Amino acid sequence: MRFGVVGKVVKWPPAMDWLSGYGGKDATSDGIAAVIVTIMLIPQSLAYALLAGLPPQVGLYASILPLVAYALFGSSRALAVGPVAVVSLLTAASVSKVAEPGSPEYLAAAMILAALSGIVLVIMGLLRLGWIANLLSHPVVSGFITASGILIAASQLKHVLGVELHGHNLVDIMHSLVPRLDKINGPTVIIGVGAIAFLFWVRSRLKPLLQRTGLSPFLVDMLTKAGPVMAVIVTTLAVYGLDLKQQGVAIVGAIPGGLPEIQVPPAHAEFWRKLFPAAVLISLIGFVESISVAQTLAAKRRQRVNANRELTGLGAANLASAFSGGFPVTGGFSRSVVNFDAGAVTPMAGVFTAVGIALTALFLTPLFQYLPKATLAATIIVAVLSLVDLGEIRRTWRYSKTDFTAMALTIAVVLGVGVEAGVLTGVLASIALFLWRTSAPHVAVVGQVPGTEHFRNVLRHDVMCSKKVLSVRVDESLYFANARNLEDRIYDDVLMRPTVEHVVLMGSAINQIDASALESLESLNQRLHDAGVTLHLSEVKGPVMDRLRQSHFPEELTGQFFLSQFAAMKTLDPDCAQRALQPDQK
Amino acid sequence: MRFGVVGKVVKWPPAMDWLSGYGGKDATSDGIAAVIVTIMLIPQSLAYALLAGLPPQVGLYASILPLVAYALFGSSRALAVGPVAVVSLLTAASVSKVAEPGSPEYLAAAMILAALSGIVLVIMGLLRLGWIANLLSHPVVSGFITASGILIAASQLKHVLGVELHGHNLVDIMHSLVPRLDKINGPTVIIGVGAIAFLFWVRSRLKPLLQRTGLSPFLVDMLTKAGPVMAVIVTTLAVYGLDLKQQGVAIVGAIPGGLPEIQVPPAHAEFWRKLFPAAVLISLIGFVESISVAQTLAAKRRQRVNANRELTGLGAANLASAFSGGFPVTGGFSRSVVNFDAGAVTPMAGVFTAVGIALTALFLTPLFQYLPKATLAATIIVAVLSLVDLGEIRRTWRYSKTDFTAMALTIAVVLGVGVEAGVLTGVLASIALFLWRTSAPHVAVVGQVPGTEHFRNVLRHDVMCSKKVLSVRVDESLYFANARNLEDRIYDDVLMRPTVEHVVLMGSAINQIDASALESLESLNQRLHDAGVTLHLSEVKGPVMDRLRQSHFPEELTGQFFLSQFAAMKTLDPDCAQRALQPDQK
Repeated sequence: MRFGVVGKVVKWPPAMDWLSGYGGKDATSDGIAAVIVTIMLIPQSLAYALLAGLPPQVGLYASILPLVAYALFGSSRALAVGPVAVVSLLTAASVSKVAEPGSPEYLAAAMILAALSGIVLVIMGLLRLGWIANLLSHPVVSGFITASGILIAASQLKHVLGVELHGHNLVDIMHSLVPRLDKINGPTVIIGVGAIAFLFWVRSRLKPLLQRTGLSPFLVDMLTKAGPVMAVIVTTLAVYGLDLKQQGVAIVGAIPGGLPEIQVPPAHAEFWRKLFPAAVLISLIGFVESISVAQTLAAKRRQRVNANRELTGLGAANLASAFSGGFPVTGGFSRSVVNFDAGAVTPMAGVFTAVGIALTALFLTPLFQYLPKATLAATIIVAVLSLVDLGEIRRTWRYSKTDFTAMALTIAVVLGVGVEAGVLTGVLASIALFLWRTSAPHVAVVGQVPGTEHFRNVLRHDVMCSKKVLSVRVDESLYFANARNLEDRIYDDVLMRPTVEHVVLMGSAINQIDASALESLESLNQRLHDAGVTLHLSEVKGPVMDRLRQSHFPEELTGQFFLSQFAAMKTLDPDCAQRALQPDQK
Repeated sequence: MRFGVVGKVVKWPPAMDWLSGYGGKDATSDGIAAVIVTIMLIPQSLAYALLAGLPPQVGLYASILPLVAYALFGSSRALAVGPVAVVSLLTAASVSKVAEPGSPEYLAAAMILAALSGIVLVIMGLLRLGWIANLLSHPVVSGFITASGILIAASQLKHVLGVELHGHNLVDIMHSLVPRLDKINGPTVIIGVGAIAFLFWVRSRLKPLLQRTGLSPFLVDMLTKAGPVMAVIVTTLAVYGLDLKQQGVAIVGAIPGGLPEIQVPPAHAEFWRKLFPAAVLISLIGFVESISVAQTLAAKRRQRVNANRELTGLGAANLASAFSGGFPVTGGFSRSVVNFDAGAVTPMAGVFTAVGIALTALFLTPLFQYLPKATLAATIIVAVLSLVDLGEIRRTWRYSKTDFTAMALTIAVVLGVGVEAGVLTGVLASIALFLWRTSAPHVAVVGQVPGTEHFRNVLRHDVMCSKKVLSVRVDESLYFANARNLEDRIYDDVLMRPTVEHVVLMGSAINQIDASALESLESLNQRLHDAGVTLHLSEVKGPVMDRLRQSHFPEELTGQFFLSQFAAMKTLDPDCAQRALQPDQK
C-alpha cells in the first residue's frame, strides 16, 4: 500500500534497476545535489588525504572513479562515497608501519591497501559474509568512533600548532608535544585556531542567525555546510596576500593538476601480505559505518538496501580507488546526509559529483597552492569532534555494565595503544563478555500460580510448590559455555531438597541444545538416576525436540517429555496440581 | 533423605572435612585400594615419563608428592592423580620446543611447566575461574582426546619398531618412518607386538574366560587390570634371560633409586615465559579431564565435587610435582575408576598409594633395568587406543553438523599440525560457529490457534492471522551478533505485507537484549515509524523489561508493551481476535 516492493529480477550491472527509467527530472535533482556535495567534498578530500599522510591530489583521485564504481554496483540511492575520517586514520596507522610517510612506497602501500580492501569486500559480498560485520557490536563501534574522533583531532594538532608531532596513540602524540611547546608557530596558530573558532561559530551560532532572517531552511542549511569552503577561501587569500609562507605557515603547495592515471597497484608482495589484516579491519569498519548511513537514509524513503550488494558496491569503489592512485574509501555520514537533503534521488548524483571533482582536479588545483594546512586541520578537527558522543557512553553505562566494559576497553586501548589494537580488543571483549554472561544464565525454580495452570518464579511470585517435584526453568539456550554450569546447579538444587523425587526441566526459553549441552543433560540424567531422582522435560520447542530425536537421549531419559508444565504436574503430583487449581477449597 | 548435605563450615586445609572422622575401617578400605592402584601405577608412571620424553624415575617422582598434595587440597574422594597420557603428550610437544630431549634443560623445562600449571590452576581456583574450562566444548574435547590417542599411539611406534622417529604430528611421524623401514629391529618388534597382542587379549578375551571360572567379579576385574604388570614381568625376564640387549632391544636401563629431592624449579626466565601458554592449555585440558572423572564418580556415591576446590587441588598437586623433580599431572580416568572400584573411601587412599610408589622408588628400581621400552610403549598404545571414540564422532555427526565441524577441525589439526594448534583451532571454531548459528536465529511469524488464546508458528500450525497485525516471535536472545540481521528481517517481512499497520514482537524466548540489540530495536522502531507502521512488544520477560526501563526505548516506542500476545491482538485487532476465539461462529 505505502511502499513499493523492489523487484527480484536479476539485472547486471545492478545500476540497471534505476538507470532504465532515468529521466530529465531525476537528472535535475541529482545535478543540484551533486553541485552542493562537490563544494563540500573538495576541502574534505584534501583534508582526509592530509590525515592519511598522503599528497592532497590523492584525496581528489579517491573522490572520482570510486563514486562512479559505487553508482554502478551499490544499492543505496543516497550514499556518498569517498575518503572519510576514520578510514583515513586507519590507513595512516597501517601504511606508516610498512613505509615512510612522504615516500613513493607510502603512496604505493596506500593503493595496495585500497586494492586489498576492495578484494576483501567483493569476496565478502559474493560469499554473503555481511554478517561478519555483526561481530563489531554497537558499543565497540560507538566507542571506537568516539576514541578515533579524539585521536584524529590530536593528530591534527601538529598542523594547527606548526610543529612536528609523532605517534599513533594519544599518549605518544602528547608525549612528543611537550618538548616542542617552544617551537609553536604564531601565525599558524592564529590561522588554525581562528578557523576552528569560525567553524564552530558557523555550526552553533550562524544557523539560528540565518534562520531569523527568514531564509528558506534549505538555504540556511547549505550556507552553514559551506563554512569549510569559506574558511579555505579566506585563509588562502590571507596567506597569499600577507606572504605568510615566509612567517613559517605550512601550505599545501603546488598540486599536480590533471586526472588520475589509470594504473595497476604495484605487485609488492611484502606489502600485500603485511597490509592484509589492516585491509580486513578497514573493510569491516568501513562497511559498518556505510551500511548504517545507507539504512537510515533508505528508511526515510521506504527503500531497502541490500547488505551483500553494499559489500560489492563498496568493494568496487575501493578497487576503482586502487586503480586510479587513490586510497581506501567508504560511505561518509555527513556528505550522504547533505546529498540526501539536497535532493539526490539516484546514484547518478554520485556520478555528477565525480565529474565535479574531476573538473576541480583538471582546472582548480592552482587555487589551493597557498591553502594553509592549518585550515584543513581545522576542518578535520571540527568535523571529527562531532563524532565524540559522550551521551552514548552514558546511556550504555546506564543500560548494561557488560556492554559498557567492552566500550570502555575499546576507548582506552584506541587512545593508549592505537586504532587497530583498540578494535581487536573491543571485538574480543564483546565475545568474551557475551560468553561469560550466558555461561551463568538465569535459572528459576518455578511453582504453580494458584487458580491457574501457569508456572512462575518462586522468588518473584506467590506460588505453590510440590514437595515431590522440583520444577526448574532455564532462561537461556543450552550450549557449551553454560552446559556444565547448569548441570551442577540443577544437581545441587536437588541435593538441597531431600524430599524431591522428580525434576522437571521447563524448556520454554531453550532455543538450542548443542552437543556439549546434550552430553551434560545425559550426565545430569545419570547423576540424578544414581541419586534416585527422575528427570523430566516439559515445553520443549519443536526444532529443539526434532534435534533431540536424532540422539539417544529420549531413550536414556529416566522420565518423560511433557507438552506443558501443568501436564507434568498433573502426572507426577496430581494432588498438588489439583490443590493449586482450587486454592479456596484447600 | 537419601543423601547427606555437605557442611558449609570453612575448614583448612580442606582435607579436614574427612580427616577429622577418619577411622580404622576407612584405613582398611583405602589401604586395599592403594595396593591395587600402586601395582597399576608403576608401569603407567614409567610409560608416561617415556611418552613425555623424560627419564623413567621422573614418572615415579610425579606419582608421590602430587598425590599427597591432592589429598590435602582436592575435593574428590576417589580421584587418583598422577601422570596421564594426554597431558604427557602435551608436555612433550611444548617442552621439546624449548629444549633438547635428554638434556638437563629438558628436565628443568618439564619442572617449570609443572610449576606454571600449578600456579595457573591455583589462581584460577582462587579467582573462581573454573567456568573458563567451559570454552572447551564437548565435541572439541572429545575430538581432541580421540586425535591425541591416535597421535600418542603413533609416537610410540618408534619404541615398538626400534627405530628413531621424529615429529609432533601424524604426518611428520609417518614421513620419518618411511626411509627407516629397513632399520626395524626384529626382536624389539616381537616384544612390542607380542605385548600389544597380549594386552588386547587380556582386555577382550581373558575377562569372559575368568568370569566363566566363577571368580568374584571384583577379582576378575583386578586380574584383568594387572595385565600390564604381567607383560612387564614376562618381557623383563625374557630380555634378561636371553640377553636381548645385545640383539638391539632398547631397555629402560639403570634407574637411580631413592626418593625425589625437594628442589625449587630453576629460575630460567626464558623458559617460564615461553612455556606459559602451554601451561594454560595443559591446565585447562587437565582440569576438564579430571573434573569429568571426579563428577562421574562422586555421583555414584551421592557426593559433590567443588570445581573451584578441584582447581586448587590439582594446582597443589602440580606445584608438588614441580618441587620434587616431576612433570605436569592430573586426575586419570582409568586409575580413578580402579581406585573407586577397589573401595577407596577417602583421599587417604592416594596418600597410601604415594607411600607404595615411594617404596618402589627406594627399593624396586633395579628390577626395571632390563624392562624393554617396547613393553612400556605397548601398554601406552593399548591404553590410548581406548581413548579413540569413533561412536562419539558418529553421534555428533547425527546430532549437529555445526558441532561435528568443530570436532572434525580439531581432529584434523591435531593430527596434521599438532596438539596445541588443534585445541586452539577447536576452541576458536566452537565460538565462531556458535556466533554464526545464533546470528541468524529462528524467527516465526505466528498466528492465533482457533478457539484458544495461544499463538503458534504459521508454518507449523493451522492458525488465524490478522491482515492488520503482523506477529513475530524470535527464538533467541537479541545481541550484537544477530541484532542487525533481525532488524532487517522484520523490516523486510513488513515490506512484503502492504496491509500491515502494527508489528508485535513476541518476547517469550528473548532472554537478553544487549546494547547493540537495543540500538537495533530503536532503529527498527524508527524505520517502521517512517513507513507508517507501529511497533509493539508482548510477553517481555521480567529481567529483560527491568533493563529496558533503564533506557529511553519505552518512551520512544511508537506502540505499547503487552503482557500477552492475546492481549495485544484484543487491543490492535479485536474483531480478528474474537473471530479466532469462536471459530465455529464465523
